[in-house]
Amino acid sequence: VAELELIAAIERRLRARGDRVLRGPGDDAAVVRGGGIAVTSIDTVADGVHFRLSTHSPSDVGHKALGQALSDLAAMGARPGEAYVSLALPSGFGDAEALELVDGLEALAERSGVTVAGGDVVGAGALVVSVTVTGWAEDPAALAYRDGARPGDLVGVSGELGAAGAGLLLLDGLDCALDAGVREELVRRHLRPEPRLELGRALAGAGVSAMIDLSDGVATDAEHLSACSGASLEVRLPDLPLADGVTEVARSARREPYELAAASGDDYELLFTVSPDRREAVEEAASSAGAVLGWIGSVVAGDAAVLLDASGTALALGGFEHR
Amino acid sequence: VAELELIAAIERRLRARGDRVLRGPGDDAAVVRGGGIAVTSIDTVADGVHFRLSTHSPSDVGHKALGQALSDLAAMGARPGEAYVSLALPSGFGDAEALELVDGLEALAERSGVTVAGGDVVGAGALVVSVTVTGWAEDPAALAYRDGARPGDLVGVSGELGAAGAGLLLLDGLDCALDAGVREELVRRHLRPEPRLELGRALAGAGVSAMIDLSDGVATDAEHLSACSGASLEVRLPDLPLADGVTEVARSARREPYELAAASGDDYELLFTVSPDRREAVEEAASSAGAVLGWIGSVVAGDAAVLLDASGTALALGGFEHR
Repeated sequence: VAELELIAAIERRLRARGDRVLRGPGDDAAVVRGGGIAVTSIDTVADGVHFRLSTHSPSDVGHKALGQALSDLAAMGARPGEAYVSLALPSGFGDAEALELVDGLEALAERSGVTVAGGDVVGAGALVVSVTVTGWAEDPAALAYRDGARPGDLVGVSGELGAAGAGLLLLDGLDCALDAGVREELVRRHLRPEPRLELGRALAGAGVSAMIDLSDGVATDAEHLSACSGASLEVRLPDLPLADGVTEVARSARREPYELAAASGDDYELLFTVSPDRREAVEEAASSAGAVLGWIGSVVAGDAAVLLDASGTALALGGFEHR
Repeated sequence: VAELELIAAIERRLRARGDRVLRGPGDDAAVVRGGGIAVTSIDTVADGVHFRLSTHSPSDVGHKALGQALSDLAAMGARPGEAYVSLALPSGFGDAEALELVDGLEALAERSGVTVAGGDVVGAGALVVSVTVTGWAEDPAALAYRDGARPGDLVGVSGELGAAGAGLLLLDGLDCALDAGVREELVRRHLRPEPRLELGRALAGAGVSAMIDLSDGVATDAEHLSACSGASLEVRLPDLPLADGVTEVARSARREPYELAAASGDDYELLFTVSPDRREAVEEAASSAGAVLGWIGSVVAGDAAVLLDASGTALALGGFEHR
């Protein structure tokens, strides 16, 4: 029954947002006024795989679990709505840590306008946090999917890449001389990825032809878009926008900066394709959402992603797959 | 990338049901045509806590994970819709076992008219399966909640109790002479609980005042209804309908049969309250759903559940709490 007390303590920390949630936690199920089209994704993070309690605070874990799930809604261009959170807690993870985890998750929920409308807390042999998020849209045609890339489209990406991968290397103890602020930002990008919700809605509204969030890295995620679309995303690696410090970290790790940026995941930026005649509209939409875009390639006939180096030579994709 | 192949193999085993799911697995999120009111619950089972791989087949685990989640929709009286499944798999749990788990889950989904519309597969230190289910209703007033029990209401329960608890004792090696068919049925009730979806809709439609599914056992779940309703469910333990073999198993375990039935969870029958003037309508609804009801108590003023023994003496609730 300690579990019931923990659940009650968690419920006291959660706030409803908006007026869609008719019943939140505390009944057999949440009751939500549906708003047209429901867009739903489930995402799970596990200790030792997606995070390590030795480097991530419980609050970081809560942030990351929700952030990763919300990033899928960003990639669809959906308006975020509700989250449902399952905490599988090992015996060494105390109630105080569980509440800290919930606080980290709830803080991101608040900034994102999301209501945590339900959850489950169970004992388990390992810390595993599973989050289901539901977003809402008026019309399925207003969403962005993975299968709409067409030859002739441009390939774009938001923000700067490689930060989360570089941050992980630094957390792993890589020796690299860096400005303290740059180092802190790289580590933060790994610990607390930010879902690009506003940008995703702006890009979907501006008519991108396909979109995905960068959870696995440009190499793997470009391959997903290519396979789903039946077209080939050609990505010019030297055109990848790199976050500050990624070049230095990559050199310290004896890796090519663009390879690090393309192969490492967890940046949670958005990769998309768009017809050239919508490029300007997409740039305006991104700008109004406060984001910078990079143009990193084009779509050609084919069915697999192609990565081009500085000389225009296609590189083997295998070496870039998410580790 | 073995993970991606496993995900592809899983997706090939899943079938869409009905026409609500516009996009199932394979994109960033599922896209579903909302049908009025969304009713959503997340439930998690973990190895060593809710099941043991030494006694549960992977298929049993898949069934149980979905069945337990769907039982929450039954308790609301919602029409089941979609399921989103997270599999956190330890290194010793192979792809063949994962697919067997999915097959067990998908078989129950098929019988229940549910579409598995999305999922996630990750590595983890322990087998943890988390399932989010969404059901749909026309009107929130047509659902049954935990907070509607009022003094004067009758307390009813569906089916026969104690089977899952007795089955667990048998799986744990309890020595008890039983007819082979009775033993098998008790074990099956523990391994493969059946969500009472049709019955839940029938009872909600017939106007029960409050309802909950028996996941923790009558003692704890009556307490939930009491606390949520601000009323006291008085349950007459000797009136609990016992499943065949529960008396024999309880005696072999040196426990009182009604105590076993009230304290052990996982029966996933429905506990409800109803105004006496609706008793007949509720009985007819249950009968049309193929279920038998037991009348086990009444609601009085108060705020906590009360368990009465054969002499009408109130027993301490503590001893009945879900272990």
